[in-house]
Amino acid sequence: MLKIAVPKESDLGELRVALVPDIVARFIKLGFEVLVQSGAGLGAHFTDSEYEAAGATIINSAKALWEAADILLKVAPPGEQQGEEEMNWLKPGATLISFLNPLANPEQVQALAQRKINAFSMEMIPRTSRAQSMDALSSQANIAGYKAALIAAASLPRLFPMMTTAAGTIPPAKVLVVGAGVAGLQAIATARRLGAVVEAFDVRPAVKEEVQSVGAKFIEIPIEEDTATTGGYAKEVGQSTQEKIRQVLTEHVKKSDVVITTAQVQGKRAPLIVTEEMVGEMNPGAVIVDLAAGQGGNCACTEAGKDVYYNGVTIIGPLNLPATLPVDASKVYAKNLLTLVKYVVKDGAIDFNFEDDIVDGTCVTYEGEIRNDRIKQALATLVQA
Amino acid sequence: MLKIAVPKESDLGELRVALVPDIVARFIKLGFEVLVQSGAGLGAHFTDSEYEAAGATIINSAKALWEAADILLKVAPPGEQQGEEEMNWLKPGATLISFLNPLANPEQVQALAQRKINAFSMEMIPRTSRAQSMDALSSQANIAGYKAALIAAASLPRLFPMMTTAAGTIPPAKVLVVGAGVAGLQAIATARRLGAVVEAFDVRPAVKEEVQSVGAKFIEIPIEEDTATTGGYAKEVGQSTQEKIRQVLTEHVKKSDVVITTAQVQGKRAPLIVTEEMVGEMNPGAVIVDLAAGQGGNCACTEAGKDVYYNGVTIIGPLNLPATLPVDASKVYAKNLLTLVKYVVKDGAIDFNFEDDIVDGTCVTYEGEIRNDRIKQALATLVQA
Repeated sequence: MLKIAVPKESDLGELRVALVPDIVARFIKLGFEVLVQSGAGLGAHFTDSEYEAAGATIINSAKALWEAADILLKVAPPGEQQGEEEMNWLKPGATLISFLNPLANPEQVQALAQRKINAFSMEMIPRTSRAQSMDALSSQANIAGYKAALIAAASLPRLFPMMTTAAGTIPPAKVLVVGAGVAGLQAIATARRLGAVVEAFDVRPAVKEEVQSVGAKFIEIPIEEDTATTGGYAKEVGQSTQEKIRQVLTEHVKKSDVVITTAQVQGKRAPLIVTEEMVGEMNPGAVIVDLAAGQGGNCACTEAGKDVYYNGVTIIGPLNLPATLPVDASKVYAKNLLTLVKYVVKDGAIDFNFEDDIVDGTCVTYEGEIRNDRIKQALATLVQA
Repeated sequence: MLKIAVPKESDLGELRVALVPDIVARFIKLGFEVLVQSGAGLGAHFTDSEYEAAGATIINSAKALWEAADILLKVAPPGEQQGEEEMNWLKPGATLISFLNPLANPEQVQALAQRKINAFSMEMIPRTSRAQSMDALSSQANIAGYKAALIAAASLPRLFPMMTTAAGTIPPAKVLVVGAGVAGLQAIATARRLGAVVEAFDVRPAVKEEVQSVGAKFIEIPIEEDTATTGGYAKEVGQSTQEKIRQVLTEHVKKSDVVITTAQVQGKRAPLIVTEEMVGEMNPGAVIVDLAAGQGGNCACTEAGKDVYYNGVTIIGPLNLPATLPVDASKVYAKNLLTLVKYVVKDGAIDFNFEDDIVDGTCVTYEGEIRNDRIKQALATLVQA
């Protein structure tokens, strides 16, 4: 009987938990044993007794929990506790399934390999329809996009909706969303729900229809290079294209009350989209929410994790928005994990079938080796530098 | 030529301003002279040069501005600056038009009368259709209700909207709004915009249709006493009725993710609606936004101006929400003032025609006398105590 272990997240501010009680019950029904660290769900308002009622065994000691795990399910990459590396508590041959941020932190992947931990990185779930229900980047980006629009609305000194009152009509706020991935589309949808007028841009012309379907106007900028990866993510574009985009967007940024940026390129610094000069031309009171703050930011004025005031404009650089909605973020993440574990476990053991694109793409370390070329490359670059 | 003066608000956190540049231009066109204190609009992102462009004269000294005023337009009741009472800078015979909170602060009204200031209290605008466009309580409550719903959404650890994703369906949040005046109705409408399921209660059965028209379910509680003033505001109800209401609401509060309370009775402490026991039965992670925080609160756990955590529930007691949307709050307030001033000024002077119900209701001091019986009563009660 495979032991699934769910630790309390040790990162400050990480209120999510890998499994919620409902999903624990599903694992128990499938024949797994589930161990949950005492207090693991508290940040997301799930109590030990709810986990127990779902069939989990509560373990008090973090170390004992990690040591017992056949499969450890986690949200944030393993960290440190009382001067010890959490991942060193795992037994060799154990499986870790978590966000690992492997392209930005390839050294940890290397350490996992050396420790003979078989690790699945939730960032690496392929973007295919078969894997859609395991796609944790999307499930969390959806929540981040919603919250980004809410933060913008709550920070703007004006209303989002148009209001026709006895004291005159207030026009709706103008919102610009740059980057129309899952987060961007949900930011558009939420700003629209609140009554704002929204326009959006993305380097991938293919997303135009999706942008329009959630109620925004798509800003057309003719681009003469390939802008999407085979996986459908945005690709880094050349300097001249970036310059062209900034030029066209300048006018749109200037007249916007709110700019929400979500442009990220996997494994690279986020592209600079809103320059200091563009911020300087915005109306005082305008608000920028930069969802790429953790990747260097799409705005030149962004400071990760901070609110910056520049020339009357507020630039907000939130770092972990899904953790601010820990109940629902944990629910969908737990569902992603359930689907993945069910998919890879055959006859009571993980089937490391690397012929399968989901296993091949997601499993980043196996039996002491790093399995992913991009992570190896990132590591090599790091060693050179 | 009457001189209208607009000071910089001296209350900490009061970012609104009585007139915005557009409305200054309207006053100038009507033949008024408008003086604006330097920096008066900065909190609401209006610059001195915008006021100048609209035809205002910028005055640097607060004292000089107050002294020059024939009509001084203000948001918050006069306060203190450098140890001096602002209102003492007004010349006898000058007119002050502002929120004055006269029933809670009758002593200031008395002081205004003694100083021979003719004061109009914006809280006292009658609730008639003729006066609707001067109704500043409503124009500001509308903004407060919108922001209350946004704060609730931004503080809840769950999403407001239902979301159907590849990782399962997230049910919508359940919101309960108590008090369906202007603020309550706008809170309902905003929570509905964001996709929450909303139910609402008000002691006045007449508002049922309005509640339904903005998309909420009305909670029926049979009440056998008169619950509305002739003006349409809610009346204080007896102890047994209050007990009955709390009893019925207990079940609704318990299953709500968000409770927004807006129940106020003019000139009285706000009714206690959500007891400590009721909070104790709510789900951990639930959020209460108490718009009556400044009037003693509708919730037993509320602390004015603070966030309180009680048994996993967050109770937010915001004090001046319209000031957090200073651009639009100032715009509609300025429009309210323009309509009132146009209405009362005849042939270059204020026409104190007390036959008119708007003038009669709103003008609280005239030629040294307090004109309003409820304020006189409040003062008498204060002197007795």
